[in-house]
Amino acid sequence: MQTAERAGLPRTLAIDYEKIGLPIGVMVAILGLTMLAPAIFDLQAGSPDWRVFIEAALVVAGLGATLALSCMRPLQPLTLRECFVLVVASWMVVSFAGALPLMLTSHGLSFTDAFFETASALTTTGSTVMSGLDKLPPGILVWRSMMQWIGGLGIIAFGLLLLPFLGIGGLQLFRIESSDTYEKTVARTQVFARRLVAVYFLLTLGCTLSYAASGMSLFDAVNHAMTTLSTGGFSTHDASFGYFHQPAILWFSSLFMIAGSLPFSLYVRLFDAHRTNLLDDIQVRTLLGIVAGISAMLVVWLVIRQHTPIATAITHVVFNVTSIITTTGYASTDYTLWGTFPIAMMFVVTLLGGCTGSTAGGIKMFRLVVYWKIFSRLLVDLRFPDGVFPVRCGDRPITNEVMLSTLAFLTLFLATLLGATLALSLTGLDLVTSLSGAATALCNVGPGLGGIVGPSGNFSSLPDFSKWILALAMIIGRLEIGAAYVVLLPAFWRV
Amino acid sequence: MQTAERAGLPRTLAIDYEKIGLPIGVMVAILGLTMLAPAIFDLQAGSPDWRVFIEAALVVAGLGATLALSCMRPLQPLTLRECFVLVVASWMVVSFAGALPLMLTSHGLSFTDAFFETASALTTTGSTVMSGLDKLPPGILVWRSMMQWIGGLGIIAFGLLLLPFLGIGGLQLFRIESSDTYEKTVARTQVFARRLVAVYFLLTLGCTLSYAASGMSLFDAVNHAMTTLSTGGFSTHDASFGYFHQPAILWFSSLFMIAGSLPFSLYVRLFDAHRTNLLDDIQVRTLLGIVAGISAMLVVWLVIRQHTPIATAITHVVFNVTSIITTTGYASTDYTLWGTFPIAMMFVVTLLGGCTGSTAGGIKMFRLVVYWKIFSRLLVDLRFPDGVFPVRCGDRPITNEVMLSTLAFLTLFLATLLGATLALSLTGLDLVTSLSGAATALCNVGPGLGGIVGPSGNFSSLPDFSKWILALAMIIGRLEIGAAYVVLLPAFWRV
Repeated sequence: MQTAERAGLPRTLAIDYEKIGLPIGVMVAILGLTMLAPAIFDLQAGSPDWRVFIEAALVVAGLGATLALSCMRPLQPLTLRECFVLVVASWMVVSFAGALPLMLTSHGLSFTDAFFETASALTTTGSTVMSGLDKLPPGILVWRSMMQWIGGLGIIAFGLLLLPFLGIGGLQLFRIESSDTYEKTVARTQVFARRLVAVYFLLTLGCTLSYAASGMSLFDAVNHAMTTLSTGGFSTHDASFGYFHQPAILWFSSLFMIAGSLPFSLYVRLFDAHRTNLLDDIQVRTLLGIVAGISAMLVVWLVIRQHTPIATAITHVVFNVTSIITTTGYASTDYTLWGTFPIAMMFVVTLLGGCTGSTAGGIKMFRLVVYWKIFSRLLVDLRFPDGVFPVRCGDRPITNEVMLSTLAFLTLFLATLLGATLALSLTGLDLVTSLSGAATALCNVGPGLGGIVGPSGNFSSLPDFSKWILALAMIIGRLEIGAAYVVLLPAFWRV
Repeated sequence: MQTAERAGLPRTLAIDYEKIGLPIGVMVAILGLTMLAPAIFDLQAGSPDWRVFIEAALVVAGLGATLALSCMRPLQPLTLRECFVLVVASWMVVSFAGALPLMLTSHGLSFTDAFFETASALTTTGSTVMSGLDKLPPGILVWRSMMQWIGGLGIIAFGLLLLPFLGIGGLQLFRIESSDTYEKTVARTQVFARRLVAVYFLLTLGCTLSYAASGMSLFDAVNHAMTTLSTGGFSTHDASFGYFHQPAILWFSSLFMIAGSLPFSLYVRLFDAHRTNLLDDIQVRTLLGIVAGISAMLVVWLVIRQHTPIATAITHVVFNVTSIITTTGYASTDYTLWGTFPIAMMFVVTLLGGCTGSTAGGIKMFRLVVYWKIFSRLLVDLRFPDGVFPVRCGDRPITNEVMLSTLAFLTLFLATLLGATLALSLTGLDLVTSLSGAATALCNVGPGLGGIVGPSGNFSSLPDFSKWILALAMIIGRLEIGAAYVVLLPAFWRV
């Protein structure tokens, strides 16, 4: 019967792969060109790896340019299905492209390790299979940081300009309604993109200067600023922020991690000379409230149970809670030694995530707000069965479609989390490692719990199969889960 | 603004506590009278505890009868708010009433332990703080089994006749639409209830005979039949089903656990001479499919990884998977020794649950079906944005309201699970114990994971505070989570 109903509808058009090839080619070519930067660092430091980065740059930029040129045509709007293919394919392609120099340097990683490290970088997750970071030549360190910085920019752009139109995860709420013509929309998008890059660059510069002023070397300041603003979490030291002992560095880092997890559309709006108060945004208020509430609980626990001096407790609790909720993943200390309650709390915080429209992953603040609103409305409905009460999130009405798809997100999220946990347990990992590993990958955070994937561990000792599962989970998380499943279903490909 | 909108609506009427007192009084009185049964067992066995059960019966039945008589009035339909108060209050009151004999016997439990054991029994969870079961006098063992049997009957009756009208958790789908007058509805309900009791009794009798025929003593057969059909899981032996070595006992148990977790409305319909094929029901098909699929995976794991003989593997895997998914909670062996994948799988299975309309807890099959249907529909919507495709579950249409409240259930479920995990971790329990303990209580299963709450552990060594959290989680699980929160909100009590 459903088939008969469907038959009356216009068939979706076939996918035009040239329309997808152009943007992917451009992305790959740009990624290739950026490999010249680490080459300069290695050349200065006298590391022979500079050749590797030049070679990789030539290969990757060449391939990307070839793809882009062969698909060059006047710009045309993508169909919905083409958008889906574009987001999924671009994540896979750039992850392979970025992995090339990691395999070729003198500290050459295996194919699996290089893909894992690159996926972890570009998705701004920050889990690493590399150790001995403190002694590595500067090129490879810069490349890891740059991939997170570039990945973060891509995530924000995709999240603001593309994902809201896919109809998944409740992101429809963030559609910019426009009655403009296609040309006007493109022009507006270009202005928007330029402003976005400017904001991202300025915030990174501010973070670099703050770090340098608090006592970091300039090299460390630049690298950590890139991985702070992108809420990525890669460090140039095995001890992560445990290497730095100045409280000012931890506080500046907390500040800029929060800045990186706020909706970037708010910053862009500042250009329009709107007097935007960040606290007017419900996502921002919710995030700050949750950070404050959870930090307060953990500080009380640490002071009472572990007799930590209160100033030390506040600095480290705020830093590590901020690091996890913004899905950055730095650690200033091994918080799994704080006791049972902080461990369970860090697991919960891993799932929460920052604000939509930023580089943060996880469930995200706007969904928590929508869940709360839906629950409140269900209660009102129970008491006043005949009333009609519109649900709102800030100044936007939450339609039925948004409610359904926001709620459906959690179902897919939970199913994926448990599925990835089972897959990891198949490779012989215990429940805490499997579950926290799946959570930290899917939410693009970085560290999990337990000796291997915990804040003081390293992902390198995991079996190869586990690394592929985790890398895939990172990319699925970046696709807001829904987009990954849509493309995996045979029905999607039926024309 | 919302207040202004609300002001125009008719105010909900005040709660009439006499209408609630009558059914609660009747329930308590019946529970009191049933305490005479264990008294007979103890009298026969020469245990002095028979006096305790007589005394408790008099006190409880007396209090219940007094309450019922003082609220006696012609039957009147309950309002929606009164239904909420009734379901929540009755769970609390009967849990306290049933705990009385457990505190007074010669093996007297503390108040906390007695409440925990009773809540665990009446919610058919099956977690226990009692050990040395093999040497206890028969009365207290019979009382534990009877509480599960009675609790199971109450759960089915509430689940079929009351919960669907509360508008929570998507259970609206199981509303019996009726245009009858109130008197006719009452008459039909009475017929339905009689048939339900008959089916429940007959299935228990069948289970008793099967157990006895396979080599159980009659006492064990009766007790285990009561806790099998109610998917409760209390045993008369510390080793649970590990005490019995006949495979036939495990297979009969698997069969009757499944029988206890199918929708009882299907059995009742057999009286109407409908030719009902159980497999026509989508919940039944889904449950059997999941049990088969998961069992197959675990058998392969055990045979390959642990070199278990295949017949042994099949018997124990099917038994333990069935025990957990039906939320019974028997164990034939410590399956946490099977390795990482079975442990993670048992955790996932804990969350799934049986069919709605039975004694099983957890997320339940119909919700899994609805989630799948919603996901499929979202996909169809993406491909055919202009089409309108109704969503169906079996022969019932899934309305928007049902979709929203089924999805909202999972949000509350996850929030409660994580909240209970955090609360348990505050009492010093590690993450695996906290998380699996919260899950097993909320889903009314029985055993969790780890040394303390695992299948070979015992809940007695937990701190008192943890026991209260777990007992509360069991009751919240039985209230389909939503009902508990509705009653907890101040807005509910505002007239």
